[in-house]
Amino acid sequence: MKLIRFGEANNEKTGVIIDDAYYDTSIFGQDYNEHFFETDGLNQLQKFIDSNKDQLPEISKDVRLGSPVARPSKIICIGLNYADHAKETKASIPSEPIIFFKSTTALCGPYDDVIIPKNSAKTDWEVELAVVIGKKASYVDETDALDYVAGYCLHNDLSERSFQLERNGQWVKGKSCDTFAPLGPFMATKDEINDTDNLRLWLTVNGKKMQDGNTADFIFKIPFLVSYVSQFMTLLPGDVISTGTPAGVGLGMNPQVYLKAGDVMELGIDGLGTSKQNVKAYAKD
Amino acid sequence: MKLIRFGEANNEKTGVIIDDAYYDTSIFGQDYNEHFFETDGLNQLQKFIDSNKDQLPEISKDVRLGSPVARPSKIICIGLNYADHAKETKASIPSEPIIFFKSTTALCGPYDDVIIPKNSAKTDWEVELAVVIGKKASYVDETDALDYVAGYCLHNDLSERSFQLERNGQWVKGKSCDTFAPLGPFMATKDEINDTDNLRLWLTVNGKKMQDGNTADFIFKIPFLVSYVSQFMTLLPGDVISTGTPAGVGLGMNPQVYLKAGDVMELGIDGLGTSKQNVKAYAKD
Repeated sequence: MKLIRFGEANNEKTGVIIDDAYYDTSIFGQDYNEHFFETDGLNQLQKFIDSNKDQLPEISKDVRLGSPVARPSKIICIGLNYADHAKETKASIPSEPIIFFKSTTALCGPYDDVIIPKNSAKTDWEVELAVVIGKKASYVDETDALDYVAGYCLHNDLSERSFQLERNGQWVKGKSCDTFAPLGPFMATKDEINDTDNLRLWLTVNGKKMQDGNTADFIFKIPFLVSYVSQFMTLLPGDVISTGTPAGVGLGMNPQVYLKAGDVMELGIDGLGTSKQNVKAYAKD
Repeated sequence: MKLIRFGEANNEKTGVIIDDAYYDTSIFGQDYNEHFFETDGLNQLQKFIDSNKDQLPEISKDVRLGSPVARPSKIICIGLNYADHAKETKASIPSEPIIFFKSTTALCGPYDDVIIPKNSAKTDWEVELAVVIGKKASYVDETDALDYVAGYCLHNDLSERSFQLERNGQWVKGKSCDTFAPLGPFMATKDEINDTDNLRLWLTVNGKKMQDGNTADFIFKIPFLVSYVSQFMTLLPGDVISTGTPAGVGLGMNPQVYLKAGDVMELGIDGLGTSKQNVKAYAKD
């Protein structure tokens, strides 16, 4: 299945994509949140769709998409998980995964505007494959780790590099601004993706290719990451683990290049669709 | 008001402390969560109590207490906010606040057992004053910051020092294990505390005084911290900001001292009560 959430921000309805058309599943009665994943929601939803396929209301593809999963308990990111990205940022190859968090208030839809925060000089892009957790995971073995995965999404891990690296410590400070986590367009359930270790992922700014990598270059693969993170904290259903970005971020360029109002980012991953964000300056409501 | 949550873990009921007695307020019908704080819950609860004081069921003080606030969207911690603690850990005085996160799955009650995680060698204590956010805060001025605060709690910011400092980056890795955030016994509303800049806070292990500080030694005071954090992320009602720990942690001792199964921690802050945690080894359920 391909899960979407659509409509007004913070009041999204649930849907699915079938054969490239959007359908409203809100009559199923559950948002795609922690409770949904925890209570076998994916299987129940599949049964519901099988039984009601002909009655599901089709919706316009012009609708706003929100994050395909509701606000999770946490968004965990893996730092420097592609060797070429570690190299461009002059970091060494990590001997074990770097874990950092993004505030869940950063979450937004895949076509929403990205807002450059106040006092920002260095807002940067990062195309990433995000894993959505399907059930509570603590001290999980690598061999069992995929049992705890519900699916995958496209994620743009926006980063303010001066906040992250020049403002006295801990990356979360540069990863958590509003609109810094456009997720989607959809969450693909595990069965939709044949091989998570061979997916091309790319990002353009104003049409110019900036990132063009492949998950074949992961330093740490998804089962290892899920197992690893679960040694340090309990993962809850619906939690998001973003698996790192390949080379081609603004920080790694010479001279460095950062986002400015009016820029347009487009990004995609094989099998996980594409997204597009217009960059806007911060303006007080 | 002094808010408590009591009963079975993950199924707590709400209550209040009045004149040192515990009362059940669950008939008020709202958990102390984001929605409660967002919808003027504190004022509504006060009115409810004023109208129903004689009918509120008194409950035994032997009841288990949970965290006084329900699981928030995030737990933000401030690093090295007391000069004597920065010195003991051989860190320099921060020029601006260090921000890190704890996983919200670390949250537990003030008298719950603290579990030493698997593969831990360096589990450490940190008595802290935690601020609970009362309304959504983004780019808040320091002069207005206290308008966004609902109240204060006692917090033990448990930390696994090898996970935090020796496992390749970002402190969240050593701050997020289950039971690493005993909060409470109660949340005191803002009006209960005269001066947050002059509160003694202390912690003992097996009866021996380890920490004995005063919030007068904050490097960054609460209004500045709330304003500062809100420049980098949106704070939601119910979110917790823990304001750092004074000297006397195990990491700062020579030789270093860490928790072991059988140890007992007791801690307290003027006006915010005391808590006590027995330390247990991890054992698979």
